[in-house]
Amino acid sequence: MTMSGTEPDRSELGRLLREAGSAYDPQGVERLIEGVLAAPTEVGKSWHALVADPMTKRLAGALEALEAVKAKAYHNGLSAGDFEILPRSARLDRLRQELASQRLGAFIVPRADEHQGEYVPPRGQRLAWLTGFTGSAGVAIVLRDRAALFVDGRYTLQAAAQVDTQLFEIHHLIDEPPARWIGTALAAGTVVGYDPWLHTPQEVERFRAAAEKAGASLRAVSENPLDRAWSERPAAPIAPVVPHADRFTGESAQSKRSRLGRALAEEGAAAAVLTMPESIAWLLNIRGGDVPHTPLPLSFAILRQDGSVTLFIEPRKLAPGLERHLGNQVTVTSPEGLGPALDALAGEGDRVQVDPATAACWIFDRLEASGAKIHRAADPCLLPKACKNPVELDGTRAAHRRDGAALTRFLAWLAHEAPKGGLAEIAASDQLETIRREGQHFRDLSFPTISGAGSNGAIVHYRAMAETEKRLEPGTLYLLDSGAQYLDGTTDVTRTVAIGEPTQEMRDRFTRVLKGHIALALARFPKGTTGTQLDAFARRALWQQGLDYDHGTGHGVGSYLGVHEGPQRISKAPNGQALLPGMIVSNEPGYYKTGAYGIRIENLVLVQPVEGQGEREMLGFETLTLAPIDRNLIDTSLLEGEEVSWLDEYHKRVRETLTPLVDPETARWLAAATQPIATAPPT
Amino acid sequence: MTMSGTEPDRSELGRLLREAGSAYDPQGVERLIEGVLAAPTEVGKSWHALVADPMTKRLAGALEALEAVKAKAYHNGLSAGDFEILPRSARLDRLRQELASQRLGAFIVPRADEHQGEYVPPRGQRLAWLTGFTGSAGVAIVLRDRAALFVDGRYTLQAAAQVDTQLFEIHHLIDEPPARWIGTALAAGTVVGYDPWLHTPQEVERFRAAAEKAGASLRAVSENPLDRAWSERPAAPIAPVVPHADRFTGESAQSKRSRLGRALAEEGAAAAVLTMPESIAWLLNIRGGDVPHTPLPLSFAILRQDGSVTLFIEPRKLAPGLERHLGNQVTVTSPEGLGPALDALAGEGDRVQVDPATAACWIFDRLEASGAKIHRAADPCLLPKACKNPVELDGTRAAHRRDGAALTRFLAWLAHEAPKGGLAEIAASDQLETIRREGQHFRDLSFPTISGAGSNGAIVHYRAMAETEKRLEPGTLYLLDSGAQYLDGTTDVTRTVAIGEPTQEMRDRFTRVLKGHIALALARFPKGTTGTQLDAFARRALWQQGLDYDHGTGHGVGSYLGVHEGPQRISKAPNGQALLPGMIVSNEPGYYKTGAYGIRIENLVLVQPVEGQGEREMLGFETLTLAPIDRNLIDTSLLEGEEVSWLDEYHKRVRETLTPLVDPETARWLAAATQPIATAPPT
Repeated sequence: MTMSGTEPDRSELGRLLREAGSAYDPQGVERLIEGVLAAPTEVGKSWHALVADPMTKRLAGALEALEAVKAKAYHNGLSAGDFEILPRSARLDRLRQELASQRLGAFIVPRADEHQGEYVPPRGQRLAWLTGFTGSAGVAIVLRDRAALFVDGRYTLQAAAQVDTQLFEIHHLIDEPPARWIGTALAAGTVVGYDPWLHTPQEVERFRAAAEKAGASLRAVSENPLDRAWSERPAAPIAPVVPHADRFTGESAQSKRSRLGRALAEEGAAAAVLTMPESIAWLLNIRGGDVPHTPLPLSFAILRQDGSVTLFIEPRKLAPGLERHLGNQVTVTSPEGLGPALDALAGEGDRVQVDPATAACWIFDRLEASGAKIHRAADPCLLPKACKNPVELDGTRAAHRRDGAALTRFLAWLAHEAPKGGLAEIAASDQLETIRREGQHFRDLSFPTISGAGSNGAIVHYRAMAETEKRLEPGTLYLLDSGAQYLDGTTDVTRTVAIGEPTQEMRDRFTRVLKGHIALALARFPKGTTGTQLDAFARRALWQQGLDYDHGTGHGVGSYLGVHEGPQRISKAPNGQALLPGMIVSNEPGYYKTGAYGIRIENLVLVQPVEGQGEREMLGFETLTLAPIDRNLIDTSLLEGEEVSWLDEYHKRVRETLTPLVDPETARWLAAATQPIATAPPT
Repeated sequence: MTMSGTEPDRSELGRLLREAGSAYDPQGVERLIEGVLAAPTEVGKSWHALVADPMTKRLAGALEALEAVKAKAYHNGLSAGDFEILPRSARLDRLRQELASQRLGAFIVPRADEHQGEYVPPRGQRLAWLTGFTGSAGVAIVLRDRAALFVDGRYTLQAAAQVDTQLFEIHHLIDEPPARWIGTALAAGTVVGYDPWLHTPQEVERFRAAAEKAGASLRAVSENPLDRAWSERPAAPIAPVVPHADRFTGESAQSKRSRLGRALAEEGAAAAVLTMPESIAWLLNIRGGDVPHTPLPLSFAILRQDGSVTLFIEPRKLAPGLERHLGNQVTVTSPEGLGPALDALAGEGDRVQVDPATAACWIFDRLEASGAKIHRAADPCLLPKACKNPVELDGTRAAHRRDGAALTRFLAWLAHEAPKGGLAEIAASDQLETIRREGQHFRDLSFPTISGAGSNGAIVHYRAMAETEKRLEPGTLYLLDSGAQYLDGTTDVTRTVAIGEPTQEMRDRFTRVLKGHIALALARFPKGTTGTQLDAFARRALWQQGLDYDHGTGHGVGSYLGVHEGPQRISKAPNGQALLPGMIVSNEPGYYKTGAYGIRIENLVLVQPVEGQGEREMLGFETLTLAPIDRNLIDTSLLEGEEVSWLDEYHKRVRETLTPLVDPETARWLAAATQPIATAPPT
């Protein structure tokens, strides 16, 4: 990307393309590169294969040169520089002009894109473009003379720093929800616009009820006024979509399609509309690179009873040979074909299954307009995807061994470097990333590393930036939450490390968090138990002292897919999904003292049947993550016998598994770090 | 009721009525008595005041005589004798004839009546009339040539005993739900009838989806075909509706109406339709006697923003002076007025609040037909009713002291009587009832006592009957779950007692149940925590051994109202309602070994703020129930220090509170039964 590029010669490029047997002309390649630039940098040169395969050396050089030139001119409207060219106030004005021309009194700008996912490509970053706020959750409501941004507690500080509060009032998403705000802010008769592609029906219903209470009304726009205002909106991302091999997935796509098709028949649905790229990636055993940290090919699909699938996807993204991998039961067509395909389903008169929790309102509206019978039910891929098969489980165990070895090498390095002083958050996380990238099958981090020293550790979703990063000072805690995407599994692990000597309060809190972690790790529970039922086990030791933490205890984790996936969770929020064998969830209680320090201990665990002499079918957890837990932070007087046993056995397993995978110096450190609590004094 | 009655002289009765200044003529009195006979026997002679107040001695005698005569002729269609006169097969035939004449291919007969409550008066016992099954949950579906009854696991044995399985297939309500059965049993094109008065909209939607899957359709009937087939259907119950004094309620009805009216205004609703008699009783500070064990006046009501109420109730039920108590903001009208009142609300064009979880579909249909704007939201009385005020809490504490003294007197008696041998379940529970009835403010039991010896204790909803009752034999456990309605509070308590020497397994299981009970009693939890989150605390000690119990851990309890009330619960089932200060819930883990024994330990507990040095607003439980827990059943080696402390402190409180309230012999037994575990060996 940093090549010194002069504008390449077009006719020369055309010749090279023809020579390589490419279907592209130079103009087509330029447009392709606009998509490539909107994809995460992990795409690297992999997109060359989309142009010609095999690639010629000279064409590759020309493509690189052209990409470098275009990268310089690339403006996605989201960088600091872009906000200087077109400031927030001008953006808001433009949007208001569009509202006026569409006769709207207000407009809702959510953070979600058409897929309602965690990561949104630049083209879908409407909330960030409008407000400057880049957090992963939030919504803005723009009226003619007021505008408000709603963010949750994680993002209050960040929003205040990123947003012009002269333009946007900032409210708390939970304490002052937008629906309540609407009730007071809207004048009777106001027409509130929303983009039906960006909301689920459930969300729209909440807004509609609130608007009606205020005597206002809601209207779906057919063209998003913000998209009209955003003149240089980036292209949709383009990264190659490739097969994910059966040796990693453990089940062929054909087998998955057939059994899910049969399940549709049992549900009495002729077809299901799939709108979550994770589901489509899992179902078809494909992976892509359209958004950071999750190997997703953004797309839609329709699955039918006979197991056949229509995949709506930008065709330029498909890597050579992908259509052969998909087979002749999968028809590939462009995303524009989705609407007509929904109309056709309606025409057949059958019931069409759509997930009201994840699918855009637009899908429902279109089906209803065509007279389809809609069967509202969960995305049929969710549960089968969550319950990993033995091949996926072997894969994730292998990935966790490599990841544990990498993290342990880092921790040993940290133990050596931190006392020297001067080490700061970004350098620390860069070092960990460098080590991780050496691992077999490594593809990407699974989320932006949280590297928080001292009081930064108390910011739950902290992301170190050059301006705010802290050094790892003696007498503080360092919280490190990180993970990686390997072809055979996805990892997510948090360790909290004492730099120098911790205070007694830190030890007390850390030990209570550890007690919660162990209570969950040791839990046995009958078939049918949900994460909501188990969550309090992880909090009890804190609750007894009037303490708590404001995040969930566990989220589902994919297999070389999303590091956050449903339908299971371990959290306070009601969730009806039972924990089932093969599900992976995180076990991550924490404690945060604002302005002082943060503590979190996170392992991934696997739901497994438990053998025993009892009367019920019981389940329990197998811990997947392998890395030492800082013994310097444990107040052993607070631990009970079974807790000490768990810790010592865990550390023994960590030591025995990882020692062969690390260098001798790390192995020596690991041996000391995993000494039994039961017999040895703290080092 | 057992007076030797000859037909009283009508003209003499007329004269007595006129003399006493009654508004009734003899025919009117006869119709009134038909309603009195359909009320529970607790009504006693209280209904006389409905006829004349003051009553003359001679009129009272005549009324008693007339009631006795009519009682002999009373047939509600539900007694064993009634099933001989008109057997199940004839009833089913009659219903099928009605179905044919209404061109229905099937009909759904639920257990619920128009109020969707726990207790149903004889007139609403449609499921029992049709099938003979008298359990508290179930549904029948009658087709032209098949019929099925669906009951849950508690009732499988009872249904098999009560129902003619040649006429009705019996299915498991949860494992083979009616909706799934419908999918296979219905021929395409079948029209399935349902009575919109007897189902919530949510239920109807489930049935509708299932029927449509089978190509069948659902139709609301305007006249229930079963009611047409039930020729001698009993009258609606008549028991006096009386004021419930402010010294028990702690808040005047006027104050309640005003604040709930204001809350409606905040919700943006002009009025709320109330369909739960508990809510109406609470709101208006009135009590009745239409169903067993809960002092309900069956009625409907509409509450408006200004705090005014229209009460739809059988006017003959109102005790003298009740209208004065209700005041001039409450308009009393007959139940038939409800429909037109809903039409009028619609005509005003305002939003009408109705609870889709508890209100009959009929209400929604009527409002929709009149063009009303419906605001679906929880019954506005639910939460204020659940959070007791200080006067109600003082009342319930007083009621629990009296109830604890009564139960302790019984337990001391039992300890004396049981070793003699020969004592059986019914005699035992009769003895307890006799003692309880002596207590101040006693009005009724709060539910049918569960008195289960040996293997009968393992039947969770056991009800002793002469044919099935067992003796309390040495080496067995006796489970006693009982409670009472006092004017100042409602109680519900379970104790499990060893008769003779228990086995080591019994001790192990009892101690694990006790550990769960104590874990919940000791729980501290932050504001916002739900019962679903805490439920597992009560199960953990059982789960660790592969054991569990198949019922909830805790239900809400009213204040001289339902012994089961929402919206809070402590159970596995997802429930979004946070536990709030002032809520009363039961704490009742158990263990059941089919064919052998049952264990349950139940106290009522009160949610209270907890003081402490922590960072969060924390809540905890105050235990209300006072009665010893059988120390002979405790394996102290399984208890941890804090568990022993809890038990010893609880027993100390029981002893100190109850000793002054019981006879010396009971006091001596109590002193022994509440010795500290920490210092004394088991007796």
